[in-house]
Amino acid sequence: MSAHTTAARKAQGKPAAAKAKQAALIALDWGTTSLRAYLFDAAGEVLDTRISTAGIMNLPVPVEEGGFDAAFDEACGVWLAQSSALPVLAAGMVGSAQGWVSAPYVETPAGEDALVAGIAKVRTASGVEMAVVPGVLEPGALPNVMRGEETQIFGALGERGEQADVANQPSKQPMQPALIGLPGTHAKWVVVEGARIARFYTFMTGEVYAALTAHTILGRTMKRPAAPDTEAFLRGVTVAREHGCAGVLATAFSTRTLGLTDQLAADEQPDYLSGLLIGHELAGLDAVLARRDVELAACAPRLIGAEALCERYRLALAQFGCGGVEIVHRATERGLWRIAVRAGLVAPTDQTNPTA
Amino acid sequence: MSAHTTAARKAQGKPAAAKAKQAALIALDWGTTSLRAYLFDAAGEVLDTRISTAGIMNLPVPVEEGGFDAAFDEACGVWLAQSSALPVLAAGMVGSAQGWVSAPYVETPAGEDALVAGIAKVRTASGVEMAVVPGVLEPGALPNVMRGEETQIFGALGERGEQADVANQPSKQPMQPALIGLPGTHAKWVVVEGARIARFYTFMTGEVYAALTAHTILGRTMKRPAAPDTEAFLRGVTVAREHGCAGVLATAFSTRTLGLTDQLAADEQPDYLSGLLIGHELAGLDAVLARRDVELAACAPRLIGAEALCERYRLALAQFGCGGVEIVHRATERGLWRIAVRAGLVAPTDQTNPTA
Repeated sequence: MSAHTTAARKAQGKPAAAKAKQAALIALDWGTTSLRAYLFDAAGEVLDTRISTAGIMNLPVPVEEGGFDAAFDEACGVWLAQSSALPVLAAGMVGSAQGWVSAPYVETPAGEDALVAGIAKVRTASGVEMAVVPGVLEPGALPNVMRGEETQIFGALGERGEQADVANQPSKQPMQPALIGLPGTHAKWVVVEGARIARFYTFMTGEVYAALTAHTILGRTMKRPAAPDTEAFLRGVTVAREHGCAGVLATAFSTRTLGLTDQLAADEQPDYLSGLLIGHELAGLDAVLARRDVELAACAPRLIGAEALCERYRLALAQFGCGGVEIVHRATERGLWRIAVRAGLVAPTDQTNPTA
Repeated sequence: MSAHTTAARKAQGKPAAAKAKQAALIALDWGTTSLRAYLFDAAGEVLDTRISTAGIMNLPVPVEEGGFDAAFDEACGVWLAQSSALPVLAAGMVGSAQGWVSAPYVETPAGEDALVAGIAKVRTASGVEMAVVPGVLEPGALPNVMRGEETQIFGALGERGEQADVANQPSKQPMQPALIGLPGTHAKWVVVEGARIARFYTFMTGEVYAALTAHTILGRTMKRPAAPDTEAFLRGVTVAREHGCAGVLATAFSTRTLGLTDQLAADEQPDYLSGLLIGHELAGLDAVLARRDVELAACAPRLIGAEALCERYRLALAQFGCGGVEIVHRATERGLWRIAVRAGLVAPTDQTNPTA
């Protein structure tokens, strides 16, 4: 457990702001491999953050021996010792069938109200009630699921002055759909219409990249470059975009054949393949958006994720004619705060500036 | 080393055919993980076959200690002991940069004459000269390479009474392009025009399937069925064909989400994913063929490979409207014989019925 208490100490040094700096909410982003705990004040500012590796598949003791309680106490016990009545909200895999309490998926189109209505509750051994945000399911021939991302998405919607509920809009005109990308192991692309998650797509880009480099012939000739090779990355994106019609099962092999024919050095191959896969992801996204008359090039997507990865996606998106990309920061904290407010877990003192 | 000498024994029992049953050629299919050696008579009939695991990456002793010679002697020594002057031809990875002798790629369009002209030679420690067939390279933005398949393809062309060289055709009309598929780890689809390998595509279908099932989240919920599940396989093919526009990085995730939503049982998931990947391969093939005004549905492809896998491809191809699929048997032996004849290594006594 590594704890970062900078914000809390800063608050103590500013007695004038003491009232606003009182702890008002504990919110958790509890995934498969990590647990991030945030302590908020009533203005939605993060006072303290605690990060551990106690994801639901990595609990400090087995579930049957109180693994969830142990992880929770380790992360939040110090805060609850100071004010035991703090409300607690959690999002992520902790609400899955393998989690602490099952918070069944809410179906698309899913707005904040539906998420709030789907909140499940679990009481900890220490008597604290924890509210757990449900995931979202898009049914259909190719169902899609998310758990944790829905919270980040509503955090991202707070940017650009958007309202979370279409009923709050001054006019009855429908809002323009927003496109939000969450790059990573299982990259997601989410279309938000009228402040609701309308539909979304999952691309196994990160995990397929890892499997191809570690467990196929492509990895055997690769050498990690000293620094990321942007040129090789963009070359991969271009090949996927311009010569990708046979699909990634075919183009991936070019990583090897370009190497065999001395056209791609060993230390260019990792970034080339990365560009190829991300290029195919964006080409696929472009194709599914087009079926609904949405043009990727006309979107100004928001990205949520690790900064360096988001920057790579920004470069790749530019090759698809897609500019105005915005990288959203603190989407998780913003989303947790927003849902907690909507659920009535906390009464905000300054709603116009959450987690600023 | 397992040796099958049935054919040779049968020959001994038929003295009337003794002359034709004399050994006339040794031909090797020498790949990365296996070595198949064939003993032919002068009519192109296989008298004996010897199969070993001594592929070029699996030699009985290291290369610097004479690994290639050791493998060769183990496979063919018994034949050469009986008639030391037999010509020897080999195809496959033995001619690669990591092989016994480098037989540089011949570029497309590549006919039999070009392969023969590209033959490299190596002399064994025992003084035998071995001729090695070169591989084929298709240059371009996405280069493609084959080594060993070119020999199988010319073996398959012997079927249906085709001539190997357009110059032998009675008229000057161009031959219809033939489509030949070689399913497997790195599946290849080859377009043959005018008895030459015009262009080809490699799909990493088999290797990606193995990596996805063994090294991603998709494998975790899978259970091997007692017998192949054709229905699940065809469902995967259909999803790729009808809902595949986002690409395989997206559709692959449905293996998991269909499972999560109780629409795909654990023991249906392996065949579903297999169908999905093969479906994407064929959709990609369809797309690249269409760019050259060739319609997959109008082709009657020939397939070379393991019988059960070829049967799966036959089923999948039918979903793409592609009938008349023919599974070619003994393409390797036929191709080796054919190239040996063309190279003048052996003078055939009965060319009309090779390896019948």
